[in-house]
Amino acid sequence: MSQYTEINLTKRPDGSPIGPHMFEVVKKAVPTAGPGQILIKQTHMSLDPAMMGWMSPDTESYIPPVELGTVMRSSGLGEVVESNHPDFSVGDRVMGMTGWAEYILSNGQGFNKVMDGVDAETALSIFALPGLTATQGMSIIKPEAGETLIVTGAAGSVGSIVGQMAKADGMRVIGVVGSDEKADWIVNTLGFDGAINYKTDDLESKLAQLTPNGIDAFFENTGGPIQQHIFARMNAHGRIAVCGMIADYTSETPAPGPNWMQIIKKRLTIQGYTMPDHFDKVPQLIGKLAPYVMQGKIKHRTHILEGLESAMTGLNLFFTGGNKGKLIVKL
Amino acid sequence: MSQYTEINLTKRPDGSPIGPHMFEVVKKAVPTAGPGQILIKQTHMSLDPAMMGWMSPDTESYIPPVELGTVMRSSGLGEVVESNHPDFSVGDRVMGMTGWAEYILSNGQGFNKVMDGVDAETALSIFALPGLTATQGMSIIKPEAGETLIVTGAAGSVGSIVGQMAKADGMRVIGVVGSDEKADWIVNTLGFDGAINYKTDDLESKLAQLTPNGIDAFFENTGGPIQQHIFARMNAHGRIAVCGMIADYTSETPAPGPNWMQIIKKRLTIQGYTMPDHFDKVPQLIGKLAPYVMQGKIKHRTHILEGLESAMTGLNLFFTGGNKGKLIVKL
Repeated sequence: MSQYTEINLTKRPDGSPIGPHMFEVVKKAVPTAGPGQILIKQTHMSLDPAMMGWMSPDTESYIPPVELGTVMRSSGLGEVVESNHPDFSVGDRVMGMTGWAEYILSNGQGFNKVMDGVDAETALSIFALPGLTATQGMSIIKPEAGETLIVTGAAGSVGSIVGQMAKADGMRVIGVVGSDEKADWIVNTLGFDGAINYKTDDLESKLAQLTPNGIDAFFENTGGPIQQHIFARMNAHGRIAVCGMIADYTSETPAPGPNWMQIIKKRLTIQGYTMPDHFDKVPQLIGKLAPYVMQGKIKHRTHILEGLESAMTGLNLFFTGGNKGKLIVKL
Repeated sequence: MSQYTEINLTKRPDGSPIGPHMFEVVKKAVPTAGPGQILIKQTHMSLDPAMMGWMSPDTESYIPPVELGTVMRSSGLGEVVESNHPDFSVGDRVMGMTGWAEYILSNGQGFNKVMDGVDAETALSIFALPGLTATQGMSIIKPEAGETLIVTGAAGSVGSIVGQMAKADGMRVIGVVGSDEKADWIVNTLGFDGAINYKTDDLESKLAQLTPNGIDAFFENTGGPIQQHIFARMNAHGRIAVCGMIADYTSETPAPGPNWMQIIKKRLTIQGYTMPDHFDKVPQLIGKLAPYVMQGKIKHRTHILEGLESAMTGLNLFFTGGNKGKLIVKL
């Protein structure tokens, strides 16, 4: 009887780096698909900043935390290796909430077949959480040609798609990144109108230089000190989508937000959102996103980690900004 | 030739109390209505917190500041005493942007006749800026029966109407006020479910006691330290309408806002608004508001100041909270 590896969460984040001490690597016997079930062999697993929320104990979070002692949550892509389900055949490539495991037994719910001709990396980088999150965010951004959008985490999996969709819609797009290499990539490969390296640039003057007409929309993907500078340059009727605050996950005392007076004076709308609220809209979101992809307007790059166990330390790349592109664990 | 009094703004607010040193009281000859014009004798003038914004030099504000040396802006109610306009007759009571003046010459634009049977105080307290602002705010609050709303400035002209509309819609409504007398009025006369005196109550414990199921909607009308406590108790999918921040008008260093992490975790929507953006919707807003008034669900009280010149110091009542009810200057 062959075995497979599964990784359970055993300890919640405490602000120190994520690592093997928070997980338990267990070996299990590969199961057999029962009536109505499919057995999936995961080939590619997605690592996402949202995982930090899933691991944390905060019960007010948007999705219940992963219970200690159970398999860590993730989305991923795999191949159906056994099927007793009328909708799935052996050999089908499927995508869904897999978890940190080499094999997944499922009744098929929440798993969708991956379109022919779309490779696994593209599927997970665009047509999964990143692309859906970006597309949902665009409904808050309300892109208008000629207006200016600023995106933090602009070289990240979500930010890079938001910026490219906005460019395709005719906006001026400035991205905030954490390295010159990423700045180069978003400007010269993705076609953003400018980039700010938050680690080395003078934030206020660089922002003023790159947004001479102010900022109409702000996709907040990171938090951090640049938030206040961006907020100060918002134009009347500005829209702010709040999607990620990774800078505050590890800080004991969260940074204060901007004073609310400008929210009135400029009649701003600030909206936080997370994808689990919108899973019922996935078909519509895919329908909005697909034309951009089909017209070649969405480029992406992936950062591959090898082997399931690499996920345990790989998550730290979100804090250091060390990943170049969408983090995917290849099993 | 008879004369009338007009008050011009000559100095912008600098954080010290508003007073006669900021204005010039001028005497002018009462004009005569030219072709197509009406001459209005103002009888009741409204004082509103928005005036602080109109006097301030901030060019990013929602409406251009009053130019120095020109008549101070206000809304008000008066009687048509001369008319060369087909739509208005001598004796008509009209309401609109009058300014700090005993007489107003107008082409009629922006002036509307006051409904028969509605006295001047009710017209200015409900069917003018306060009621319109409250009604527009309800589109952000999105009232749901059984949910909890908290209103700051709850005994004020706008807050008292917001709270009563929400009560009529079945919400649990808690008001924040600055005196026990106001607390008594909103609970025992207006029917709010509870009141917090921000000057004397322990904010955190009183808030917890009065909002056992958390807070679903927050009408922010004042700013001040209670903002952070309210924010911390917001429920998932909470809505926050930001309408007034009087607590920050006079402070040199605006208080920081809450960290944005909770905006994501609770998927909050925070929206600032001011009425001038929505003046094109006045008929629809009146249409929404009128049924509440007709069914006797909106009570109000007015705080009358006597004589045009009383306006110059009267504005300070917004900072001290010394006004009991809608501030109206009787001319």
